[in-house]
Amino acid sequence: MNMRKTAKIKPHYNQGESLSPWRESLNDIIFGSETRKGKAFDTVLSVCIMLSVSVVMLESIDAIHRQYTRILDSAEWIFTVLFTVEYGLRLISVRRPWLYAKSFFGMVDLLAILPTYLIVLIPGGQGLMAIRVLRLLRIFRIFKLSEYLAEAHIMVEALTKSARKITVFLYAILMLVVVFGSLMYVVESGEAGFTSIPVSIYWAVVTLTTVGYGDISPQTPLGQLLASTIMIVGYGIIAVPTGIYSAELIKTYSRGKIRNDACPDCGETGHDFDAAFCKYCGHQLDDF
Amino acid sequence: MNMRKTAKIKPHYNQGESLSPWRESLNDIIFGSETRKGKAFDTVLSVCIMLSVSVVMLESIDAIHRQYTRILDSAEWIFTVLFTVEYGLRLISVRRPWLYAKSFFGMVDLLAILPTYLIVLIPGGQGLMAIRVLRLLRIFRIFKLSEYLAEAHIMVEALTKSARKITVFLYAILMLVVVFGSLMYVVESGEAGFTSIPVSIYWAVVTLTTVGYGDISPQTPLGQLLASTIMIVGYGIIAVPTGIYSAELIKTYSRGKIRNDACPDCGETGHDFDAAFCKYCGHQLDDF
Amino acid sequence: MNMRKTAKIKPHYNQGESLSPWRESLNDIIFGSETRKGKAFDTVLSVCIMLSVSVVMLESIDAIHRQYTRILDSAEWIFTVLFTVEYGLRLISVRRPWLYAKSFFGMVDLLAILPTYLIVLIPGGQGLMAIRVLRLLRIFRIFKLSEYLAEAHIMVEALTKSARKITVFLYAILMLVVVFGSLMYVVESGEAGFTSIPVSIYWAVVTLTTVGYGDISPQTPLGQLLASTIMIVGYGIIAVPTGIYSAELIKTYSRGKIRNDACPDCGETGHDFDAAFCKYCGHQLDDF
Amino acid sequence: MNMRKTAKIKPHYNQGESLSPWRESLNDIIFGSETRKGKAFDTVLSVCIMLSVSVVMLESIDAIHRQYTRILDSAEWIFTVLFTVEYGLRLISVRRPWLYAKSFFGMVDLLAILPTYLIVLIPGGQGLMAIRVLRLLRIFRIFKLSEYLAEAHIMVEALTKSARKITVFLYAILMLVVVFGSLMYVVESGEAGFTSIPVSIYWAVVTLTTVGYGDISPQTPLGQLLASTIMIVGYGIIAVPTGIYSAELIKTYSRGKIRNDACPDCGETGHDFDAAFCKYCGHQLDDF
Repeated sequence: MNMRKTAKIKPHYNQGESLSPWRESLNDIIFGSETRKGKAFDTVLSVCIMLSVSVVMLESIDAIHRQYTRILDSAEWIFTVLFTVEYGLRLISVRRPWLYAKSFFGMVDLLAILPTYLIVLIPGGQGLMAIRVLRLLRIFRIFKLSEYLAEAHIMVEALTKSARKITVFLYAILMLVVVFGSLMYVVESGEAGFTSIPVSIYWAVVTLTTVGYGDISPQTPLGQLLASTIMIVGYGIIAVPTGIYSAELIKTYSRGKIRNDACPDCGETGHDFDAAFCKYCGHQLDDF
Repeated sequence: MNMRKTAKIKPHYNQGESLSPWRESLNDIIFGSETRKGKAFDTVLSVCIMLSVSVVMLESIDAIHRQYTRILDSAEWIFTVLFTVEYGLRLISVRRPWLYAKSFFGMVDLLAILPTYLIVLIPGGQGLMAIRVLRLLRIFRIFKLSEYLAEAHIMVEALTKSARKITVFLYAILMLVVVFGSLMYVVESGEAGFTSIPVSIYWAVVTLTTVGYGDISPQTPLGQLLASTIMIVGYGIIAVPTGIYSAELIKTYSRGKIRNDACPDCGETGHDFDAAFCKYCGHQLDDF
Repeated sequence: MNMRKTAKIKPHYNQGESLSPWRESLNDIIFGSETRKGKAFDTVLSVCIMLSVSVVMLESIDAIHRQYTRILDSAEWIFTVLFTVEYGLRLISVRRPWLYAKSFFGMVDLLAILPTYLIVLIPGGQGLMAIRVLRLLRIFRIFKLSEYLAEAHIMVEALTKSARKITVFLYAILMLVVVFGSLMYVVESGEAGFTSIPVSIYWAVVTLTTVGYGDISPQTPLGQLLASTIMIVGYGIIAVPTGIYSAELIKTYSRGKIRNDACPDCGETGHDFDAAFCKYCGHQLDDF
Repeated sequence: MNMRKTAKIKPHYNQGESLSPWRESLNDIIFGSETRKGKAFDTVLSVCIMLSVSVVMLESIDAIHRQYTRILDSAEWIFTVLFTVEYGLRLISVRRPWLYAKSFFGMVDLLAILPTYLIVLIPGGQGLMAIRVLRLLRIFRIFKLSEYLAEAHIMVEALTKSARKITVFLYAILMLVVVFGSLMYVVESGEAGFTSIPVSIYWAVVTLTTVGYGDISPQTPLGQLLASTIMIVGYGIIAVPTGIYSAELIKTYSRGKIRNDACPDCGETGHDFDAAFCKYCGHQLDDF
């Protein structure tokens, strides 16, 4: 998990030269969330993030943008300056600024302020503005410290464990949509919609995942028959990721049934909860 | 659960001054469902609720409303008066009317009659009329007493237990649609449909949940590629809530079926809930 | 299960007067599938059913109907006569014709031939013709004797056991679509599409089940926000029936872990596979 | 699994006359992936396959095809010649060419080169070109040797085991769409869209699988009511394949982890697969 990268920075403080006291306390406020000041900082920061993202969204609505250009622009600059100051303070308060800057959240922090400055230099880069919405990711920095961490951890662990199986599944899906898309391209070649293989593959994805926009839909009887097949296949194989994840989650859940201690004789772990003797060497286990 | 609030009212009757006999018996008829009269009242009430909701629905259909204005209006007033009388009787028959009025069902009962009266005072508030459809919620009052309670209880318990995990999941979904929506806004900026970030986020929700109206759909090759990614992600992560709920439900099912205590003779655990003797050594288990 | 009704007819033959030998052997051919003739009859019947259903389908396609009217009409009459003869033979070969006629499959058999005759008497009843497609249900009569019965049985058993829970779930869905539909009717009242509460409820069903035709879709920002909520709710609660069914199926699966024999002392059953003693009375169980 | 067919060819080499040394080493390079040369060959082959499939896709896009006809045609011929040489080398390097040619991957290898040659002979067969996309299947030959095989194996095993149940489920789905489609044909006969029973069945598949294109959608109130029923049914029964697959996967997971034999000393069963000693009494278990 990339998200733990910043967390790894802190332990380094203890190795070697320590931060000066004021930088230390600044670090506690900005990165920590145990102190009263740290909590206040987190709250203010989340509100700023939410507001700045709202500004980005409102700006994208033409009618609002035209009417409130000045207010939105001012708000945008205020947030950018605030975040820039925050970014600077973060750089100052960590012992290894470069490590922070390269970390996942360091990059997100930079991306949150860069577009506004770049827009002044490259006037045409309006598209860059939407990148600012990534500021929302910064919420995770605060979020990760919350009480929901344990829940998220179990879910992420189950996901990580099923990652390989889901990769295989996604690969199979990819093959299916390529083959089905090409078939539909052949079958519906005369009709509107299926103009090329890539477009037909896009249609196959839309159909197999049961999204079904309807912007492209088969017109010939044979095409509709083939499409029906794809739909039923898609309907059937949705069971696969669900089954994988359910099975993995149940395993993760029931893991509490395994003793945490090692055999005092051979050191092997993973004994059942009801085991009185080591199943590997037969040595008696300690009372639990 | 808010729904139990009214249920909590009854036990209070025994604490202190009792209701007068006729209010006591009125309470049994209106709130109870054990007596013959109570059952009859419940049946009549459900029929009235169903009919009044049908009236609200029929009124909303223009053609029917114009042709049968008088019949529908009369029916509406009859039901409103009936429900008002019922509301009054409920207030009278409980020992603490204020507690009832503030309870979930007390509010629903009030919302069931208020709009019709308000419409006379505020002629323009046609929109209020649809609120009357909430009358349907009153069915739950009768429903909750039914034999399905145990089933609903297991399901709600599993849902409650997975609530935190599902909150985390919903938060992740929210992040995904905001980020994907903004990306699509940038990618498809020149095309029809993706006119602003909020609209693009709406499109991302429509796509990720595999609803796929097709009122907005990507036109550029890059947009279609990105959309395909979102669809496959959405198709994959539907496994997450299902996995969480399945695992929780299986735990809820199997819990309570195993005794927590060990056999006093051989110390073996894992006895069924209904076991009186140890299944390993035959020794009598302690009373549970 | 209604489908077992015809199966119940046979055991009656042994109670009292027996069928004459030729009716007995006719019965073996028509209802049975153990003899060589019975199997041949089943095969011929399935082919006839498939063909007659194909005829019904082809007739519904305008272009084909106009060109091949005579062939299709002849085929239809041939199958109707064949099925009528079969129906007559079935009536003759069972000991209690009335019981057969009232059974589920007796009704289906009648419905398979009736529309063609009725069309002659009531010339305008073209709509009746589609009923003939129900002939397909007759396949189940043959199908039920097949090797897939055990699989179907486990699935149906798990479904039956979760029926009550799924009823509760469907009721909750119904409440949700009525409430959400009405809300959308209020919110989108000025826009095209949401013309009445019933139509809005239809839209809510289309959305909640993630079908999403797009024939009606929200236009106002508030409507799109509300719709997004419904979609995410729908996406989340699809976990519920899946969870219920999965948990039930796993329970049905693992039931094989229970000993089939009863305690020799108290007669109680349902002992665990690893039980050596009756968990109810402590008596030693027989060796397994 | 058809995919193992080519794998079966190799063991034959040991039975009887051996390949000449150079054919042997050629076989190691082309079919094997253990040697350095074998790995290099696999890498080059995958790149060629990916590129050739890209060429097929690009050719199907009209604008690109018109502009780069010569480059694409040349690339196509280069890949075809390369694959033809490869096909020839494969035929030479195996001991039983005919067995290879008839195997699943032998057929795919032939299909990868045939269309390009046929197009010269049959100028009108443009549709054949899309068959070349099946080249992508050749990736599986390389893929199957990868580390993901174990994961794929568990998934395929669970799928194979649930195949019979899923067949029953698919049959039920088929019945449902035929019956619902015919009903909708009758109900919506006057409206646009539901022009014939086959088209109505196509609509029923689109709806039941929650794809919902919206190219055909019910217009009458009765049709919308019926459609809502189908949607909720579809939403409910998606639980069935998921439940089947989840339950099967959990069984596959947990199977093999428990030894089937009992402890020779205390007779307890349920020992883990890797247990050498009884976890209840500490006695050594028999070699497994």
